[in-house]
Amino acid sequence: MVSIPSLSQHPFDSFLSPKSVAVFGASTNPQKSGYKIIENLLNHHYSGRIYPINPRGGEILGFPVFRTITEILEPIDLAILFIPNSATIEVLQACIQKGVKAAIIEAAGFGEVEMGKPLVQEIRRITANFSKIRILGPNCTGITVVEKDGAGLFTSFIPMGSTKAGNIAIVSQSGFINGAYYPDFTERNPSMGIRYVIAIGNKMDLNELNILEYLVLDPTVTIIGLYLESFTDIRYFIDLCHRARTAGKSIILLRGGFSEVGSRATHSHTGALLERAELVHAVVQQSGCILADDFWEFFLLLRTMSHLQGFVFPQSPLTAAILTISGASGAVCADWCHHYNIQIPSWDPTSYAALKALNPPWMDPNPFCIVDYWPAVEEAKGDYHSLLMRIITLALQNPAIHGVFLTAYYNSKAWQVDWAQIAALMRQYQKPLFIWIFGTYTDLLFADRLFHDLRLPLFYSERELVQIFHKIYQNTGKSHPPVNNRNDSE
Amino acid sequence: MVSIPSLSQHPFDSFLSPKSVAVFGASTNPQKSGYKIIENLLNHHYSGRIYPINPRGGEILGFPVFRTITEILEPIDLAILFIPNSATIEVLQACIQKGVKAAIIEAAGFGEVEMGKPLVQEIRRITANFSKIRILGPNCTGITVVEKDGAGLFTSFIPMGSTKAGNIAIVSQSGFINGAYYPDFTERNPSMGIRYVIAIGNKMDLNELNILEYLVLDPTVTIIGLYLESFTDIRYFIDLCHRARTAGKSIILLRGGFSEVGSRATHSHTGALLERAELVHAVVQQSGCILADDFWEFFLLLRTMSHLQGFVFPQSPLTAAILTISGASGAVCADWCHHYNIQIPSWDPTSYAALKALNPPWMDPNPFCIVDYWPAVEEAKGDYHSLLMRIITLALQNPAIHGVFLTAYYNSKAWQVDWAQIAALMRQYQKPLFIWIFGTYTDLLFADRLFHDLRLPLFYSERELVQIFHKIYQNTGKSHPPVNNRNDSE
Repeated sequence: MVSIPSLSQHPFDSFLSPKSVAVFGASTNPQKSGYKIIENLLNHHYSGRIYPINPRGGEILGFPVFRTITEILEPIDLAILFIPNSATIEVLQACIQKGVKAAIIEAAGFGEVEMGKPLVQEIRRITANFSKIRILGPNCTGITVVEKDGAGLFTSFIPMGSTKAGNIAIVSQSGFINGAYYPDFTERNPSMGIRYVIAIGNKMDLNELNILEYLVLDPTVTIIGLYLESFTDIRYFIDLCHRARTAGKSIILLRGGFSEVGSRATHSHTGALLERAELVHAVVQQSGCILADDFWEFFLLLRTMSHLQGFVFPQSPLTAAILTISGASGAVCADWCHHYNIQIPSWDPTSYAALKALNPPWMDPNPFCIVDYWPAVEEAKGDYHSLLMRIITLALQNPAIHGVFLTAYYNSKAWQVDWAQIAALMRQYQKPLFIWIFGTYTDLLFADRLFHDLRLPLFYSERELVQIFHKIYQNTGKSHPPVNNRNDSE
Repeated sequence: MVSIPSLSQHPFDSFLSPKSVAVFGASTNPQKSGYKIIENLLNHHYSGRIYPINPRGGEILGFPVFRTITEILEPIDLAILFIPNSATIEVLQACIQKGVKAAIIEAAGFGEVEMGKPLVQEIRRITANFSKIRILGPNCTGITVVEKDGAGLFTSFIPMGSTKAGNIAIVSQSGFINGAYYPDFTERNPSMGIRYVIAIGNKMDLNELNILEYLVLDPTVTIIGLYLESFTDIRYFIDLCHRARTAGKSIILLRGGFSEVGSRATHSHTGALLERAELVHAVVQQSGCILADDFWEFFLLLRTMSHLQGFVFPQSPLTAAILTISGASGAVCADWCHHYNIQIPSWDPTSYAALKALNPPWMDPNPFCIVDYWPAVEEAKGDYHSLLMRIITLALQNPAIHGVFLTAYYNSKAWQVDWAQIAALMRQYQKPLFIWIFGTYTDLLFADRLFHDLRLPLFYSERELVQIFHKIYQNTGKSHPPVNNRNDSE
């Protein structure tokens, strides 16, 4: 078992907690990305010192621009290289001379293209195999560190929006998340708590294993999201995932390019070679990662795991109850439960009697834990809130039920529900309550944020409800192969 | 081959084009659903005559309330029964006496519950097996007919919002679509054109076959969406689907309750019995329907088919090009292409040279039709629009490529693109251009409507992009079994 250096001794520490940052390629032109990096550092209240560097000099947002790093008298912890690949050697040499310990290379055109391979050799030589300076990248949008709400370190040139501090760390072999996708999911859920987003780029030096080592020990992180196009060392990856899970952390993995067609994309992207799909699946199974279908599900899994923190999932075969205002939606949900081999038990006599009392006399409830509660809504004469509380409680308190799928009509005006009370119910019973709502689009946009703020897991289709429940459980409990794949048998 | 009566002779004609409507159970209380039906008829500018009926009399929104149907002197084409199931017999008898040809029963509690079965027998008797009056329902929110933008017939008590006239017909063995889900998808895409939404309920008399007969002949309908929990007659269903497809119509099917678990839900919902999953899959294959995963995909398929109307899909093995601003997103797309056996061909030398000229000198494009265009964006110095037009044209004009997946960064201010020109490109080449965009949430909400108005197929994840392309093609071209199911091999 490899021993991991302590956090303060770890090479990643200079990247995540630098006291000073030098930005090579800083620009005085507000339209240029070299300006936006300085703007991002400033706007996000980076607490260390900022040193823009450009041979032309000048001033950016009140900071004097240094012509070379040697002009700076104070020590530099982290260098951000926003310069063409051809200028990298010279700048790295200057950084080494200055005693900089960490550098982020944002440019592409290194090991992933033929012309860049000699450049990589030369960097290895001048850094004495990265012993003189550690490198993150190249082809890398760098690092986001959230210290507290709206404050931290943002090395990317992409406008990042405001950020909420939390315990999710994302490690990505792509600039996509620190780039365009980050504002999408944080603006959708402004209260989604992020700790780090780390683009590892083409892994010339530091890789996913180095940062995983750090995250295993880092007490501020409990949920880890990984986007990877290659595994640097499969055995060590599985080992680190086990350590992370033993430390109570969950890991979501999106693996790009594990098919032959996909590897044609990643080869030109990050120079990754094809790893057979079977190998990737074996790694997923042995590491206990939750495998995401795509970036959208990656985001949903991160959000859902953050809502369910501290919940303990059962080891027995998975069961659920379906509570639906639409018989049709309940049927589609049930078909997906069948697909993922999630059992729907029968009601115990006491609960069944309680449900019967909610229904009109001509309509008996379903003997299985599939409640079409529309007839009960009509009986409830407008008290939709109490009805929901009642049926959700009946399902959550049932020891035979591991989780609850609720599909509901959302109407903020006519059908008032105190969703905070429903969130409290879920936390009281410590069982997942997965919700799909429908109503007017405007109402739904509002509800999206409300539910996230209440940490109520919200989804957007029946398939999502059941598939994500299955994936989260499969990761934590005993796994079941799906019994009948819907898409395959079409 | 069964011969279908002409439209004006068809029993459904009285339901879809009634010149007068009587509403039993109309209420003078604006909080009650019996009031809202009248309100919906009025708000949506129903062009025929409206007759509220309630033994208490009074006035609703300016209409006098009749105590019985016999008080009405004019003929009645359609009766809406918003009354308890116990009052149904008496009202139907009065309708028959008055010569009403069509009735919608909104209440539940008939054949799907034990207590309701004698009621069904009695209705059969007094209607002489539905020869004296045709019945839609019970347990049925009725009919939406859009005559022109914002005007038509709305028999449901659910507030429906404004509606755009179009050529989509939805037939649903559930009130869900005419109820809560309709405002969701029409408010999301106000220009989504609907012709009919018909809830068939528990099919006491009229069923999906009767309405399909009508839709096969109806020239105003080109896209048919079906939500079914049971097939009334499988042979005739397949026959009608063939006739519809021969007439150039597409059919999207969502089949609720085809698993054992699912059938436990539908049995109590619409009294449907289990049909084996294998049978359902065989019906799908033989009918040429596109099978939706759930209601969300049902909506996306309807929207996409309406965007692609008139496109002719190839019969040869399916191919596509991936154009992506994120290497990662491209890799995930490519993995899904592999999953669905969609081939990514190599570029021809001329196109490849054209792509090479867009890239920086140190970065050669991928030899396969997977374009990571981020390096070209940097070279394009801000002219994002021309770059997109150029690469999309290269892909669409390539005879080896059947469709194009585009993932793009959307920034309405800094990255201006004339998406109308891109929509025109797609129509010029008559090949699907499937788009996934990311950016700030606010921007994306705006883009959602813009893209729909331009009839550009927009999706929300890589899986959706590829899966829906596959489903639409599978329906129209030669089908391929997926080669490797991602979920199964986890």
